[in-house]
Amino acid sequence: MSRENQPLITPPAKPLLIVLSGPSGAGKDAILTRMRESDCPLKYVTTLTTRPQRPAETNNVDYHFVSAEKFQEMIERNELLEYASVYGNWYGVPRKPIKQALDAGQDTVVKVDIQGAATIRKILPGAVFIFLVPPSMAELKQRLKQRHTETPIDLALRIKTAEKEIKQLSSFDYVVFNRQGDIDRAVSEIQSIVTAEKCRVARREITL
Amino acid sequence: MSRENQPLITPPAKPLLIVLSGPSGAGKDAILTRMRESDCPLKYVTTLTTRPQRPAETNNVDYHFVSAEKFQEMIERNELLEYASVYGNWYGVPRKPIKQALDAGQDTVVKVDIQGAATIRKILPGAVFIFLVPPSMAELKQRLKQRHTETPIDLALRIKTAEKEIKQLSSFDYVVFNRQGDIDRAVSEIQSIVTAEKCRVARREITL
Repeated sequence: MSRENQPLITPPAKPLLIVLSGPSGAGKDAILTRMRESDCPLKYVTTLTTRPQRPAETNNVDYHFVSAEKFQEMIERNELLEYASVYGNWYGVPRKPIKQALDAGQDTVVKVDIQGAATIRKILPGAVFIFLVPPSMAELKQRLKQRHTETPIDLALRIKTAEKEIKQLSSFDYVVFNRQGDIDRAVSEIQSIVTAEKCRVARREITL
Repeated sequence: MSRENQPLITPPAKPLLIVLSGPSGAGKDAILTRMRESDCPLKYVTTLTTRPQRPAETNNVDYHFVSAEKFQEMIERNELLEYASVYGNWYGVPRKPIKQALDAGQDTVVKVDIQGAATIRKILPGAVFIFLVPPSMAELKQRLKQRHTETPIDLALRIKTAEKEIKQLSSFDYVVFNRQGDIDRAVSEIQSIVTAEKCRVARREITL
């Protein structure tokens, strides 16, 4: 290939890791389900939890549902990129599938809680951090209630925690609103963020 | 409105100014024409030039074609946000329509040369700077030749300048490739950049 026909600027040196976070009840799972159904070419890495499976959830899709013993083993074997206890249950991000997807050049998305996002930011500062929020606290409360999975005490705790978590917005790159009945707009915004990040000059190199 | 129903995070405090730049022959005008035809809700601010109108161009759409005297008057009246001489002709960005559009809350796009983008960055650091490039120098040369508007000496100068200009990529936020026959992808990337920038946490405020 002659020098003239060489591409002027290389493609992104590394694939993207998209970290989707937000308070409990923000709708992270609904967004990911809709994204998987769309043609967004992302690799979805399923996280692990020791909490009981909810009726609407599918094992190994929404989460890998594992026992506390299995989770503990994975911590000891250093198989988790990050893990945290949230509302009395353990949640963890498996290291291997993320490494494999990124090594294979695939843009990857992973869902984590707010604490987990902060940990991943320290390990992988080049990741893209998206904060998903409902448009108002009233809508967040309504969603948590509709889930019928929490006791009134749990519910109050989640709402209190969400209020604190929303104040950590500034350590994220992007905020996406998940409005009731307008999930497609939220998914489309996330897809735009992926496209735009791939166009960022900071992720490119000049070959000229 | 109760505090609970208040939006958690305010909409972007200020509308976006998108600065589209790139070397001569990158296809800035073709991209802007296609964007105007699409449903991208941006305000297009037409820049001024003293260079002769090309056959395919429309006055007050592609440029405001003005005399050197008129251009000089506008400089003296401080009516230009920035101006520069490029290949022996003057090009300028009118201040008033940009101010009016931004004051009215409209996301605005303006096309400027590489020097002009650097000047606007100093005045309006919050603007979004997009660098449009052809995929290779060979394609840039081919496009400039196809235009049939430059003499061989002009053409050689533009190619030499483009090579220098591409090295200034690092002072831009985004790079978009304008591949022959794939203009819709370039337009879609610019639209994604606008959407993503509006989701940037740095452009939002928490009201909680």
